Amino acid sequence: MSIREEIFDLARITHEAAAEAAKLSMSVKSAILTEVARKIKTQKEKLQQENLKDVKSGKESGLSAAMIDRLTLSDKVISQTVEGLEEIAAFPDPVGEITGMWIRPNGMKVGKMRIPLGVIGIIYESRPNVTADAAALCLKAGNAVILRGGSEAFNSNLAIVKLFKETLKEFGVNEDIVNLVHTTDREAILHLLKLEEFIDLIIPRGGEELIRFVSENSRIPVIKHYKGVCHLYVDEFADQDMAVRIAINGKTQRPGVCNALETMLVHKSIAREFLPKVSSELKKSGVIIRGCEESRHIVEWMIPATEDDWYAEYLDLILAVKVVSSMDEAIMHIAKYGSLHTEAIVTKDYDASQKFLREVNSSTVIVNASTRMSDGYVFGLGAEIGISTTKIHAYGPMGVKDLTTTKFIVLGEGQIRE
Amino acid sequence: MSIREEIFDLARITHEAAAEAAKLSMSVKSAILTEVARKIKTQKEKLQQENLKDVKSGKESGLSAAMIDRLTLSDKVISQTVEGLEEIAAFPDPVGEITGMWIRPNGMKVGKMRIPLGVIGIIYESRPNVTADAAALCLKAGNAVILRGGSEAFNSNLAIVKLFKETLKEFGVNEDIVNLVHTTDREAILHLLKLEEFIDLIIPRGGEELIRFVSENSRIPVIKHYKGVCHLYVDEFADQDMAVRIAINGKTQRPGVCNALETMLVHKSIAREFLPKVSSELKKSGVIIRGCEESRHIVEWMIPATEDDWYAEYLDLILAVKVVSSMDEAIMHIAKYGSLHTEAIVTKDYDASQKFLREVNSSTVIVNASTRMSDGYVFGLGAEIGISTTKIHAYGPMGVKDLTTTKFIVLGEGQIRE
Repeated sequence: MSIREEIFDLARITHEAAAEAAKLSMSVKSAILTEVARKIKTQKEKLQQENLKDVKSGKESGLSAAMIDRLTLSDKVISQTVEGLEEIAAFPDPVGEITGMWIRPNGMKVGKMRIPLGVIGIIYESRPNVTADAAALCLKAGNAVILRGGSEAFNSNLAIVKLFKETLKEFGVNEDIVNLVHTTDREAILHLLKLEEFIDLIIPRGGEELIRFVSENSRIPVIKHYKGVCHLYVDEFADQDMAVRIAINGKTQRPGVCNALETMLVHKSIAREFLPKVSSELKKSGVIIRGCEESRHIVEWMIPATEDDWYAEYLDLILAVKVVSSMDEAIMHIAKYGSLHTEAIVTKDYDASQKFLREVNSSTVIVNASTRMSDGYVFGLGAEIGISTTKIHAYGPMGVKDLTTTKFIVLGEGQIRE
Repeated sequence: MSIREEIFDLARITHEAAAEAAKLSMSVKSAILTEVARKIKTQKEKLQQENLKDVKSGKESGLSAAMIDRLTLSDKVISQTVEGLEEIAAFPDPVGEITGMWIRPNGMKVGKMRIPLGVIGIIYESRPNVTADAAALCLKAGNAVILRGGSEAFNSNLAIVKLFKETLKEFGVNEDIVNLVHTTDREAILHLLKLEEFIDLIIPRGGEELIRFVSENSRIPVIKHYKGVCHLYVDEFADQDMAVRIAINGKTQRPGVCNALETMLVHKSIAREFLPKVSSELKKSGVIIRGCEESRHIVEWMIPATEDDWYAEYLDLILAVKVVSSMDEAIMHIAKYGSLHTEAIVTKDYDASQKFLREVNSSTVIVNASTRMSDGYVFGLGAEIGISTTKIHAYGPMGVKDLTTTKFIVLGEGQIRE
């Protein structure tokens, strides 16, 4: 069988299983997820043995230490995964929720009911724990899922998917609700991305290169984000101590993630007082600052920033700093160089807070809190399936509800069109 | 300038104008739309002169009578267009609405605020009144719009867009919020569909061939529906008189539209009583019936249906009829042959109504009313920008709200990530 035929068949049987997934009751879905969590806990050693195969061959093929770290199913990662599954099991079930209903002048009731999307394709790299998270979130929302993890994590992914399939079978449910692409050839992704008749949504998670590849080759809708160039704007009416805490937290608490702070914009009327304070605190935390000309007049040891710095997602202890002469300038800077991920303002002024909330159209806009708060879990969505910086369907952190849609339902008494 | 450069420039300036469209106040948007409506009313003769050029050359090039009818800006079409614009002007403005806000354990308030999508591309055929409707709906939702109408309606579209642009200028607003593609070459569409950096959403409206062309060539998200193969299931516990009225209305009130009835499924336990009644009424209205073998045992004059009939969107006074032995069989038939548009059940049984609502996942599911009710206007969404039978972003009739998205907004008091 060619790769093309293999992928076609996999997508077709997953599509058929989706009808069964959509009909599963809340209690059965929760019980399945709880049981998968239990299996992961009790079969930890077996999972880690399979994972060791991937880690070994990863080391042999020269993966970086960071890659090996992401690949490894340590005790900690496994217990987080188990907790994640238990949490998802305990979520309210989104399927069947009626999100609104109104009465028309002819007496007809019109409403919207939440339903699953159908089949979700998740294309991701290295981290095998994504396999469990993504499968659980898709199942909770009543979808079937096709997982296509990185070839370097194949044995780990296979072992996790096996636990899902075993559990589905134990509950008398179609095991094709959770499927893994067995071909590690990239050609498989290309075939998958063309099967719009079987797959409703593609979510790629990984580096920018993978996401561009998926986005450019897909005929199926793709929800994605490329990067996070997050901004903090320190307003002229800011609580400066708060601004320092928020800047330090945004940049240093976990610099390698997409909601970490990358550029700080400071209103000129407070720059002379604020920049020395915040810079010395950042320096103490090991942050290198790349400043605009005006900020370097105030803090001379900053490295000169170039145009490229305003676009940069450092994912490292580096911060770009720019003095702006107004909030409008800050908003224009964010619109030009930002990535529509997360932007924060620190201000004590009511009008400033409202203007920033209204005029910045990134997927998350924050007043007086750290950009690091932009996260599905922190927002109370439960686990996060991803972040979207495209405005269609979902925008910002995506939870279980974003894996559903709504259909119109009509309750009539014989109404006809006149 | 090549077509490619022309389209690139048009998309770029529309993208720039979108930032201004997003900031327009409710009252300015309403005033602009009211003024465009006034101009269309007072400059009717001028519009009709331009339209006559299109109608003349359409006749010369041998367009069908139906096409000429769709192309013509009759007095009636113009007054409907004016009413439509006035209604859209009077709608509640969706932009800025906070659709929910909740408090997290750390005291942080998290909410969602409705914002425009950005730039919408509308690709459509023949009907020049779509130009006014679509431009008005996009503007109301705070978007900029690129219109690409059929070449056969070019003069009419140009005249309507001119009225929008004049009005925008009179209000001191960027006129590029409403733009028309001036190149009638189909190559222009191909270029447009690649400009994901400038355009956020494509909505094609027209025949299946146009929609497939757009869908297969677009790198931008596309919201669409191909066709409407709408079903009526007459349950064993149906009010049979109601079912007759609903069948007649669905099939005959306006057979050429996508929510017209195409297939009727009848439960076997009532077929012997119901089919003769409904068939004779349908026949009186000039409907040709293509029935399954079992239904032809009951009503002999039905034409034998073939497999193709179950997939058919007749858009004509033809109805396919099938006897089913259970609701499950009806639901499976709909899942297999349907187009995810609109399905209705007639029943007096509570459990049957709930099962049908739950298990049929078409974009509109109706109990005891005609499929013809599936319409944005009838549902109270105001004017309709289109219908979606793909589940991403919008599903079913789309109103102004579906031309927006929501961003997360966070109101904090200095919260940081621990």
